[in-house]
Amino acid sequence: MLQGISSEAFVLGCSAIGAGLALIAGIGPGIGQGIAAGYGAQAVGRQPEAKGDIIQTMLLGQAVAETTGIYGLVIGIILLFVRPLMGAL
Amino acid sequence: MLQGISSEAFVLGCSAIGAGLALIAGIGPGIGQGIAAGYGAQAVGRQPEAKGDIIQTMLLGQAVAETTGIYGLVIGIILLFVRPLMGAL
Amino acid sequence: MLQGISSEAFVLGCSAIGAGLALIAGIGPGIGQGIAAGYGAQAVGRQPEAKGDIIQTMLLGQAVAETTGIYGLVIGIILLFVRPLMGAL
Amino acid sequence: MLQGISSEAFVLGCSAIGAGLALIAGIGPGIGQGIAAGYGAQAVGRQPEAKGDIIQTMLLGQAVAETTGIYGLVIGIILLFVRPLMGAL
Amino acid sequence: MLQGISSEAFVLGCSAIGAGLALIAGIGPGIGQGIAAGYGAQAVGRQPEAKGDIIQTMLLGQAVAETTGIYGLVIGIILLFVRPLMGAL
Repeated sequence: MLQGISSEAFVLGCSAIGAGLALIAGIGPGIGQGIAAGYGAQAVGRQPEAKGDIIQTMLLGQAVAETTGIYGLVIGIILLFVRPLMGAL
Repeated sequence: MLQGISSEAFVLGCSAIGAGLALIAGIGPGIGQGIAAGYGAQAVGRQPEAKGDIIQTMLLGQAVAETTGIYGLVIGIILLFVRPLMGAL
Repeated sequence: MLQGISSEAFVLGCSAIGAGLALIAGIGPGIGQGIAAGYGAQAVGRQPEAKGDIIQTMLLGQAVAETTGIYGLVIGIILLFVRPLMGAL
Repeated sequence: MLQGISSEAFVLGCSAIGAGLALIAGIGPGIGQGIAAGYGAQAVGRQPEAKGDIIQTMLLGQAVAETTGIYGLVIGIILLFVRPLMGAL
Repeated sequence: MLQGISSEAFVLGCSAIGAGLALIAGIGPGIGQGIAAGYGAQAVGRQPEAKGDIIQTMLLGQAVAETTGIYGLVIGIILLFVRPLMGAL
């Protein structure tokens, strides 16, 4: 190939953009978990004696909220390191 | 082909971008599940004796909220590993 | 190569865009942690005697909310400094 | 080179776009810290005698919320001034 | 150069886009500070005697929320007037 972008380069370049896009999913858990933290802190202020139960519930709910952020991270890592699309070229 | 991007490469590159875009759907469950976790923690603070029922309801509702994030993940995985568009090329 | 963009340049350029996109994930923790700070400040105003417990819960929840922002930063740094896609070119 | 964009120019141009994208992360802290400021002002109105504790908690939580905005700024500055991708060209 | 876009033009054009993208960060402080102003006005309506303390807390919190918008402005000005990427061409 004398000039221009190779097919491999095009797929890899788009994979870099795709990986970055997938990480944007992290917006959601960031907002949601912060809201949970806010309500948790407020609840602890009102019922300090229930602090253990409140934090336990907060962390359990936050763990569920984290999942879609991890989905984005996993797809990003697959695009950068596994590169399944290169095998189909 | 002496130069330029092949048709296969173009479809595969766009698939990488499409997969990344699909994962952005994860913003929603992340926010929503976090709100659920916040209200759940607040409710446990007020009625610690109902902790089991509160967490059960919270997790049930969060499971429903997770669905669209999983839709995004499934489409992303299909784009990267099943590649149905390549069969139509 | 006499003219035009090389394959290496295309992958590196797309990596710069991908890194920038990944950092957008930081929107989430920024909003969520601010909400947590607001509820925390409000709770301290109402129960100043529980200030220690409130701040502890706020910071714990904010730490969980930070994670997806760090995922974005890590993928951005990988794209700029590790450049795994260049090895597949 | 008689015409066309050089490889260096492509990477540098994409770096400018990537830097701009990374700064978009600043949306998050801006919203979140403003919410914290609103709750803080409201709390001071209700309990002016706890003003010191309220402002201290607000500023602590806002400092945590600032982090992801700084991540975006750091990646933007790296893209514009350190230019790690140019070394891989 | 008889036709086509020069390398300088490409970097300068992308810098214009990057500067514009960086300024999008201003969405955040705009929303957040408005929320702070709303809560502040509400609080002054309820406790007019605490007007000074409320406004002081509101302005302090809004000043923190302004920072990421200034980051975006600074990167935009750097892209337009300092043009660090042109020196690397």
